Amino acid sequence: MAYELYYWPGLQGRGEFVRLAFEEAGVPYRDVGREPKGVDAILRGLRGGLGGTRPFGPPFLKHGKLVVAHTAHILEYLGPRLGLVPAGEPARLAAHQHQLTITDLVAEVHDTHHPLGPSEYYENMKPEAVRRTADFLKTRMPRFLGYFDALLAGRYVLGARISYVDLSLFQVVEGLGYAFPRAFARYRKKIPRLIDLHDRVAARPRIKAYVASDRRVPFNEEGIFRHYPELDR
Amino acid sequence: MAYELYYWPGLQGRGEFVRLAFEEAGVPYRDVGREPKGVDAILRGLRGGLGGTRPFGPPFLKHGKLVVAHTAHILEYLGPRLGLVPAGEPARLAAHQHQLTITDLVAEVHDTHHPLGPSEYYENMKPEAVRRTADFLKTRMPRFLGYFDALLAGRYVLGARISYVDLSLFQVVEGLGYAFPRAFARYRKKIPRLIDLHDRVAARPRIKAYVASDRRVPFNEEGIFRHYPELDR
Repeated sequence: MAYELYYWPGLQGRGEFVRLAFEEAGVPYRDVGREPKGVDAILRGLRGGLGGTRPFGPPFLKHGKLVVAHTAHILEYLGPRLGLVPAGEPARLAAHQHQLTITDLVAEVHDTHHPLGPSEYYENMKPEAVRRTADFLKTRMPRFLGYFDALLAGRYVLGARISYVDLSLFQVVEGLGYAFPRAFARYRKKIPRLIDLHDRVAARPRIKAYVASDRRVPFNEEGIFRHYPELDR
Repeated sequence: MAYELYYWPGLQGRGEFVRLAFEEAGVPYRDVGREPKGVDAILRGLRGGLGGTRPFGPPFLKHGKLVVAHTAHILEYLGPRLGLVPAGEPARLAAHQHQLTITDLVAEVHDTHHPLGPSEYYENMKPEAVRRTADFLKTRMPRFLGYFDALLAGRYVLGARISYVDLSLFQVVEGLGYAFPRAFARYRKKIPRLIDLHDRVAARPRIKAYVASDRRVPFNEEGIFRHYPELDR
């Protein structure tokens, strides 16, 4: 049964957390949004045209007759199937809990450039974005990343083997480094274990090959992590 | 094994979605945050003092040796145990997917009064809150509630029997009616199935008794759903 990921083309966005899981597992998947007529296929899915549970928004996954939406939920579904979460209920609960904390962090990153909501353009809310980003960099980012840094007692968040949580933390570090190169360069030394995790994930053969490939959409100002120099103080 | 809910006292907040599940199921639970020294107990949990997976923030649930955090995750864990989700993987996936969509809606409701982030007081971001709320009421609320209204082909979201998703939608309708009495009074007629669901949930004996009891914290301006007349246009 093929895995079909539905996510907007042209940006990494929330879909990237799912792509990283497939890539690390070496499991083939269709990235439907990037195929010809991909956006039409996404819109058909949003109207319920794929059967299953109609998603509220991308990303969503089609697998057999099932449709699963929300990044953390897709990863919870894929984790055991891709070998990216330890066996047993406590570990699976822990993984999903951490992924939901990452979801909250990602939403706050998005809010740095869209503090007045997703409907209007960034250009219409620049002064508000400056204020919200200042608070994010000073208060919220350290709270989230400090939490994850402290978790990393072992080699990976859930122990000796890599899980989808580690892949997502790699993406968070990549993204924050892209969006806020000046502020994040100063902050990195406070989270040495998280940076070390990032570097080890980046060096894994499949991740390294993926990031160098044209399957990896470059960071840009359409996604979650956007580089606006006026926000990076 | 007792269920122990950890959530800040004095507000409904995100903990309320979990309380409604226990109340409808008629299953006893400790509401630890509201007990003497409850805040100390929450803070101990946030430092990892309960064992299990250290939570990033409340609400979290302790059940035996497990600690489970994030509202939607707690409900996913409790659903089968409380008889508040149908059996079978497709229904459980659908329930969690819907609950995560409700989580996103709840975050956007919170952002209406805190568009510049959770660190500063509302009073310091009123003009921004007016703008964000206007967009929420015009664009976002109809998108979310229209989605759920359209889902309600059967008696409940997941079919013939009530699930935790229905209880959460009851709370959303209650909360929006409290926060935005003028705007929501105008909007209600567009979502007749969701209003009907709300009314049927409100009439259920255990929910009716709970809402009338002092276990139900009244809505106030500490929680997610806050009534600021200047935002309710």
